[in-house]
Amino acid sequence: MKQLIGVDLGGTSLRAARMDTGGHILQHHSVATAATAGPEAVAAQIVALVEQVMGDISRSDIQGVGIGSPGPLDPFEGVVFRAPNLKGWVDVPLRAMLEKGIGLPVVLGNDGNAAALGEWHMGSGKGCRDFIYIGLGTGIGGGIITNGQLLLGRKGAGGEVGHIQIEGSGPVCACGQVGCWEAFASGINFARWATETLQSQPESALYAQAIAGKVTPADIFAAAVQGDAPALDCVRREGEYIGRGLVSLLHLFSPERIALGGGVMAGAALLEPHVRRVIETQAMEPFRDVEIVYAHHGEHAGVIGAAALLLS
Amino acid sequence: MKQLIGVDLGGTSLRAARMDTGGHILQHHSVATAATAGPEAVAAQIVALVEQVMGDISRSDIQGVGIGSPGPLDPFEGVVFRAPNLKGWVDVPLRAMLEKGIGLPVVLGNDGNAAALGEWHMGSGKGCRDFIYIGLGTGIGGGIITNGQLLLGRKGAGGEVGHIQIEGSGPVCACGQVGCWEAFASGINFARWATETLQSQPESALYAQAIAGKVTPADIFAAAVQGDAPALDCVRREGEYIGRGLVSLLHLFSPERIALGGGVMAGAALLEPHVRRVIETQAMEPFRDVEIVYAHHGEHAGVIGAAALLLS
Repeated sequence: MKQLIGVDLGGTSLRAARMDTGGHILQHHSVATAATAGPEAVAAQIVALVEQVMGDISRSDIQGVGIGSPGPLDPFEGVVFRAPNLKGWVDVPLRAMLEKGIGLPVVLGNDGNAAALGEWHMGSGKGCRDFIYIGLGTGIGGGIITNGQLLLGRKGAGGEVGHIQIEGSGPVCACGQVGCWEAFASGINFARWATETLQSQPESALYAQAIAGKVTPADIFAAAVQGDAPALDCVRREGEYIGRGLVSLLHLFSPERIALGGGVMAGAALLEPHVRRVIETQAMEPFRDVEIVYAHHGEHAGVIGAAALLLS
Repeated sequence: MKQLIGVDLGGTSLRAARMDTGGHILQHHSVATAATAGPEAVAAQIVALVEQVMGDISRSDIQGVGIGSPGPLDPFEGVVFRAPNLKGWVDVPLRAMLEKGIGLPVVLGNDGNAAALGEWHMGSGKGCRDFIYIGLGTGIGGGIITNGQLLLGRKGAGGEVGHIQIEGSGPVCACGQVGCWEAFASGINFARWATETLQSQPESALYAQAIAGKVTPADIFAAAVQGDAPALDCVRREGEYIGRGLVSLLHLFSPERIALGGGVMAGAALLEPHVRRVIETQAMEPFRDVEIVYAHHGEHAGVIGAAALLLS
């Protein structure tokens, strides 16, 4: 089997790795993204990184290069519409720009879909016909495999799992809507509402920190492990928010398995009973026995996912 | 092209029709369902109905028989788990029972999916690769076509569009959950909350009827056409509920087109501006230009959809 190269295009770092089709990393390298230098400069960085991770391997032993990128993009045309945190990126035909420089097939996909494909082909979703990956980080991203295919939809824009509405009102989401799942359950939003809540709970060990406006999910999990009741209550509420979004996804997709990943899953053991309770009480009976698992790919999720775009 | 036979299995009526692959009905017939006589009796009714609509046509000119049924069922195995309003229906292997009697291939599917396939193959969804049909009747049913395939999921249980959560609290849905889209936007729920609302609005022409507990969607639409302000406000709210569910579906599936059908769509012209406003203000930009259309199949939607199960 040929090897794969994955490139994770972020606003801060640009990471590349060469791996086998099982996701075992053979060589990897990263650089700071030239975020203000424009698309041509970043494309040149990507070409150089790919050259580096290729090492002594011949081009004929490489299947291609997958590029995972945040932000709105067209995976069919290989065009990045806008890239958050990258200056001057508007309608960039990245695939065409890179194929010339790299001399290998290039596939472009959004990072949530890429991570889902990585878990499906090489991780927690192996062997499933219907699988969902949810990444709970700063935002909520992910991807959906239905009937053995990545759900893309028109313009490849589907699978925006973070932007299903779970409430008719509430804080404004990063997308501009109110009521999105992400606006309640993502890491940054968990931190926001937990900080607000703990500001009126002097009995919590996190009270002073909350007043100073600095409680993170990690702080909440640490306090909860110590038995801090207000922190435990925040964990319960976060688990319930996560579970409620999953219930809607279950009813729509009836997956065999859902994998959860991202920074918030540092508290998986604490969150899990609450997530499961919501599924057991709010999902309809035929959906309750879904497997809930944790994503396999941690620090290399970005590059493994990007490489898996070549397998979709 | 061979002809198709569709059978719509309802708790009250059993309808069958023979049609061409364009959904043009050549012969149809219906009888009252023997709802209390058990599965064998209903299967015998179906066999007799199929014989009737077959007329003088030879079996070799018929592709098969599609059966659309409400309630939980396994389309892969052809088993009805439970049929609402049909006595003694538990785990009925309906496909096997019918194939013996009919002597033609039989396909079983849920009525929401069937209606979606009917619209996709022979109606408002023709030519789409990504299409959603939503039927707003007593409940909310429907079906999802993604990447040119009906979304089924594990056990064929996916596509339960009415049971995405749009609120964390509210009235209990027919499924037992709270917060389902159906519990706000379906016809029976529209009638429920509108009746409650109008009970405190003596300025409405519907006030006395609301006090008597009998306002229907048709009443509300009729009053709204006359300019009744409280009725217009109910229409606005119903349109917003419909739109909010659609926003979640847009973000997940990115369909080219959504078709709306069912009894509530009798008020389509009144509801449409509100539905569109929600999409234009709450959906993310790449999703806003989705086509919203109305289902083509009215009174024959059940049998046409059932026949379309043969084409999926």
